[in-house]
Amino acid sequence: MLIDKKPFHTIWTEPGKAAVWVIDQRKLPHQLSVIELKNPEDACSAIKDMIIRGAPLIGVTAAFGVYLATLNSNKDNYKAVLEKAINSLSKTRPTAVNLHWALGRMKEKLAPCPFEKLTRTALEEAEKIKQEDIVMCKRIGEHGLKLIEEISKKKKGEPVNILTHCNAGWLACVDWGTATSPIYQAHKKGIKLHVWIDETRPRNQGANLTAFELLNENVPHTLIADNTGGHLMQHGMVDMAIVGADRITSNGDAANKIGTYLKALAANDNKIPFYVAAPSSTIDWDLTDGLKQIPIEQRNEEEVKYVHGLNGKEIQKVLICPEKTPAANYGFDVTPARLITGIITERGIAETNSLRALFT
Amino acid sequence: MLIDKKPFHTIWTEPGKAAVWVIDQRKLPHQLSVIELKNPEDACSAIKDMIIRGAPLIGVTAAFGVYLATLNSNKDNYKAVLEKAINSLSKTRPTAVNLHWALGRMKEKLAPCPFEKLTRTALEEAEKIKQEDIVMCKRIGEHGLKLIEEISKKKKGEPVNILTHCNAGWLACVDWGTATSPIYQAHKKGIKLHVWIDETRPRNQGANLTAFELLNENVPHTLIADNTGGHLMQHGMVDMAIVGADRITSNGDAANKIGTYLKALAANDNKIPFYVAAPSSTIDWDLTDGLKQIPIEQRNEEEVKYVHGLNGKEIQKVLICPEKTPAANYGFDVTPARLITGIITERGIAETNSLRALFT
Repeated sequence: MLIDKKPFHTIWTEPGKAAVWVIDQRKLPHQLSVIELKNPEDACSAIKDMIIRGAPLIGVTAAFGVYLATLNSNKDNYKAVLEKAINSLSKTRPTAVNLHWALGRMKEKLAPCPFEKLTRTALEEAEKIKQEDIVMCKRIGEHGLKLIEEISKKKKGEPVNILTHCNAGWLACVDWGTATSPIYQAHKKGIKLHVWIDETRPRNQGANLTAFELLNENVPHTLIADNTGGHLMQHGMVDMAIVGADRITSNGDAANKIGTYLKALAANDNKIPFYVAAPSSTIDWDLTDGLKQIPIEQRNEEEVKYVHGLNGKEIQKVLICPEKTPAANYGFDVTPARLITGIITERGIAETNSLRALFT
Repeated sequence: MLIDKKPFHTIWTEPGKAAVWVIDQRKLPHQLSVIELKNPEDACSAIKDMIIRGAPLIGVTAAFGVYLATLNSNKDNYKAVLEKAINSLSKTRPTAVNLHWALGRMKEKLAPCPFEKLTRTALEEAEKIKQEDIVMCKRIGEHGLKLIEEISKKKKGEPVNILTHCNAGWLACVDWGTATSPIYQAHKKGIKLHVWIDETRPRNQGANLTAFELLNENVPHTLIADNTGGHLMQHGMVDMAIVGADRITSNGDAANKIGTYLKALAANDNKIPFYVAAPSSTIDWDLTDGLKQIPIEQRNEEEVKYVHGLNGKEIQKVLICPEKTPAANYGFDVTPARLITGIITERGIAETNSLRALFT
């Protein structure tokens, strides 16, 4: 997708150059800074220090981290070097499912590989994982696009108002994004639309990242406080909501960024369709009750007490409450299946009660 | 109530001194700064520049502004001086109902008053309006206290978890507050409780003011992002919600700070009692449909795009989105009566469908 009118992926290599490049997402939207990763340690830092984030992108970055390890190995030590790199990479964000999946796949591919073909095979497999993510996101968009088209027809071409929460955009993946993919594809097709972006406190991924994405793609959008969506829905100013998901149970309960549940309640109360867009790898077929079975991460209270942003030319943080006031920081909440109109996957759109049918 | 262990009102006079003092609320919670008002122009600035805020306190400050006008008048010009002051004060926040009510009352009281008694009468009436606000808030607290006591009994003395939104505290009134009054009275009575404070973006009155109030009164509390309340309610971590109101219709719809509706939906979905605490002057008996009849103020987009807070020793603002991203800033939303368990007024607690009965 575009940044300053130039096409970007979140991660890339250049022919003949022994490195991987990523966008430093910690500085967005205020500064566009590209970081060169030269070895697996750099890839570990990129994941651990949240230079890159988003489950799909974490997985792809880990795969490229294994490729970087092969560059720094020789015929005698390459097995040990690979094992060490995979081990370090797997510890960067212990709860990220995609991370372990990508590392497992690299390990399996490289296990029978002779040293002479090691680097080429590693690069090919990492690029393949990357390309698969792009295709999957694109397919999610193609399915979701139809929903937007239908609403557009009903509104006789008036702009379709879509509300989204957090960043399930291309910056969390390689390209297209998940929740944003239907939006980008509708926009490219000339369908008039407008996106309400929840700022998504405490980390403000909506304000920092989703707004940055849509601005650069020239998609009409408006930033709102997380408190605002209910009012907009009451007054007919939202036609549909599309959000991402971190984990979906087999019955269709969806864990996503904290606050998603509140918007789903408001959509339900105002009869507005509420969609979750996510690759099928997000579905945990073993789980049947999201509220009881999905553990919710508690993060540092400083994220609630301080807000980061641009002050003059520097990114700084300000304290928004008394220093002694304690804060709680739950990262996610679970939206029960009954509040979700459908789940948009790369295979198609399923109502929550027919999710399994889509994959059998 | 207490600040740094000393009792405060939000506005006060001192015997024999020709001035009025208020707390500069723009600097809370980071700095406690008291401002002296010497003339009606100072009172106008205090209201217009939001040195003080909250409908009840705006009314009381306007009344004291009229008193200040009498200090700067003589036998020949006092009628013109009063008229000019009342006119200026009435224009400071045109939509504030309490402002016009307080000014009307001062005007009526002073109209037949000879010049010799003018200053004393104005001071007495302003003090009377102030005292009435204190008594009204105290009564709201006495009625609301019973609800907290009942839950405390059911929980066998385990802390009662109360969620509140924005600041309907003593800083918006003179003392006690509205939504906070039951909390303070329960705390003073030794009932164990804990308050979840919504930060209340975009202006963060929860983080800035409610947290400051509760910290100074030593009431256990935790600051949360506005996105968090639904998750807490799903997991049994909230026993009741109490919020304030800016306007209530005769059928019990309540306009309050944006985001209140989302918390009411979550309370309803999880069978948690949701109370609105407000003086009866907040009820507009002529209105019967809050969603259709209560106009919602749109404020400056800068409040959404920038966050104010303490940076080192200075209060500064940081930009949280791309500079070119537009933002929308709706100040309030309307919670339908069906989601409100009861309205706590100075006369008692009414279910929304029996609100009128309480006042006839």
